Amino acid sequence: MDSHVASPASVSASDVLAAQARLRRYLDVTPTHYAERFGCWLKLENLQRTGSYKVRGAMNALLAARERGDLRPTIAASAGNHAQGLAWAAYRLGVQAITVMPKTAPQTKIAGVAHWGATVRLHGDTYDEAKLFAAELAAQHDYRLLSAFDDPDVIAGQGTVGLEIASALSPDVVIVPIGGGGLASGVALALKAQGVRVIGAQVEGVDAMARALRGDDRIIEPVATLADGVKVKVPGHLTRQLLADLIDDVVIVREAELRETLVRLALEEHLIAEGAGALALAAGKRIAAKRKCAVISGGNLDAGVLATLLQDVRPRPPRKPRQRKQERLMPPAVRASAHAAGPSLSHLIRLDTSRIARPEPEELLT
Amino acid sequence: MDSHVASPASVSASDVLAAQARLRRYLDVTPTHYAERFGCWLKLENLQRTGSYKVRGAMNALLAARERGDLRPTIAASAGNHAQGLAWAAYRLGVQAITVMPKTAPQTKIAGVAHWGATVRLHGDTYDEAKLFAAELAAQHDYRLLSAFDDPDVIAGQGTVGLEIASALSPDVVIVPIGGGGLASGVALALKAQGVRVIGAQVEGVDAMARALRGDDRIIEPVATLADGVKVKVPGHLTRQLLADLIDDVVIVREAELRETLVRLALEEHLIAEGAGALALAAGKRIAAKRKCAVISGGNLDAGVLATLLQDVRPRPPRKPRQRKQERLMPPAVRASAHAAGPSLSHLIRLDTSRIARPEPEELLT
Repeated sequence: MDSHVASPASVSASDVLAAQARLRRYLDVTPTHYAERFGCWLKLENLQRTGSYKVRGAMNALLAARERGDLRPTIAASAGNHAQGLAWAAYRLGVQAITVMPKTAPQTKIAGVAHWGATVRLHGDTYDEAKLFAAELAAQHDYRLLSAFDDPDVIAGQGTVGLEIASALSPDVVIVPIGGGGLASGVALALKAQGVRVIGAQVEGVDAMARALRGDDRIIEPVATLADGVKVKVPGHLTRQLLADLIDDVVIVREAELRETLVRLALEEHLIAEGAGALALAAGKRIAAKRKCAVISGGNLDAGVLATLLQDVRPRPPRKPRQRKQERLMPPAVRASAHAAGPSLSHLIRLDTSRIARPEPEELLT
Repeated sequence: MDSHVASPASVSASDVLAAQARLRRYLDVTPTHYAERFGCWLKLENLQRTGSYKVRGAMNALLAARERGDLRPTIAASAGNHAQGLAWAAYRLGVQAITVMPKTAPQTKIAGVAHWGATVRLHGDTYDEAKLFAAELAAQHDYRLLSAFDDPDVIAGQGTVGLEIASALSPDVVIVPIGGGGLASGVALALKAQGVRVIGAQVEGVDAMARALRGDDRIIEPVATLADGVKVKVPGHLTRQLLADLIDDVVIVREAELRETLVRLALEEHLIAEGAGALALAAGKRIAAKRKCAVISGGNLDAGVLATLLQDVRPRPPRKPRQRKQERLMPPAVRASAHAAGPSLSHLIRLDTSRIARPEPEELLT
């Protein structure tokens, strides 16, 4: 829990729009990409500066603090990406940042923070332990303590992901991973007024927010998961209040589905997501919608973990596309003669596909 | 060599514009992405349908043939990506396609062709052997033989990559991988009139086009390379004539540089490129320009190859960014007080970074 929890009224769609205006100068719009074999659009925050959307909230928080005249150094606890985002933002603005990460944070995330010149402290084994230590340091040294999710400026910054999706597509549903709930809250603030459904995704056994939204407040130690970025024991207070109003549903994904989605994303779409980054897409399989968009929230995955996944996980082959008729562009007469007059292909022995991944005779969802 | 080699006059910048109009309905514009630690823009053709730019040329060729009333089935020899592009285009248009690939083609590329319902023949160990066999089949059965690069429609289609780059950025230099020369020819046709330098990239020992452009016509067996997509023994005739006029330079990249670039692209930018796909970026390191853009031409890499590279290749850590001053946005008085009044950070023990990748004290090129 943070020292200054604001009331839900303190963050609104206007704050997300204000964040977009602040961030425009520093961050490019990330691409949206249609993953044909998944039948789902992707918002590529793995191509964001520092490899995750977290830089949006951190940058917005530093800029908003500067506008308020708050020039204290900023300290943050983080599973890794919030720390990287803060380090990058502090580097760009020439201000001081201190980060506390659990000792279990991926090497790539720790290296990323050090790269941008922020101070790195490794403390505890979990995000929640790192958070307590960051709060202690903040109190001792009068730093600004910046929550990774339970902060109006952070939520507003993350919400700009939603504004960008709405500008690029006209989605029916946007799916976001949930850890503390900052991204989901911001995106829901940005999109609910536009009539877009916002659905959260959590991993089985790391579902504190889903339970909290059902009124189950027990504090349960999260299980081990590939999705280190969403491994949060206690969800945010502000985010919980926001999501209780704004989110349409939370889908729980099994760890095996998450691993398979991550590997398919690499092999079929040539994109590297970290565990939490593949979570929304994994949930997307269960969500029926004409135009759905999953936020690939980050891509900071250790090389060794990816290598192991690529060797161990054998994804099922993608669904076979449905047979397409010849296009209507061609006049019907020509179409008929093309079928009749075309040389026969029966002399061609088809490849023995038993040695390659065989697509299943299912239809492609689009 | 193809049965119908057109004269250089038969493909021009107008043909590239015509191709763009044809393809608009079928293919989205692929993203451009700034790779901060490389100091280079990337054109993400690994996010293209079928995972490579080759679908542009194949689709343009099928559409142009239809306009001419040529409804024969199309056959193509390919190292893999041209075959996938042709298979996808034929699927979309509901026409017949036959592909011949060397037995050494990556499994992911063979599976991709079969996925889209095209006939697959595996023949020979190299692209050039597959090409001879495809020509035989075409002659026997009156198929249209579609070269992977030495064809005006194919070149014009690939050139749309250049038009999209010019629309998205204002590059000084665009760097493209060269195998047969189709992409380079098309992109150069699209960009030379706009004053953009176009530079090719080849791998050491697989540099037939670079040698041909120097007047060295010896036919040398290409060496083994990760960049299977550009492993071409005999460059195109039409492409050679075009490139002799249009290309500014060809940079030769060592295999080790290619491997390191591919791994850095995965770990730092979260993008998977195939060998040929990382070639232009690897060459980019040697090219001085304010705004340079490397075409990441494809992403079809076998899972096992990527896993091995991730385990074996230890890229040097990225360059340390230069120290940034506080931004000018803040008034000088405030800036001074921020330095003076900010709490000291000297009590914080810096992380022992010997266990993590240590950035070098160099400047970041932007």
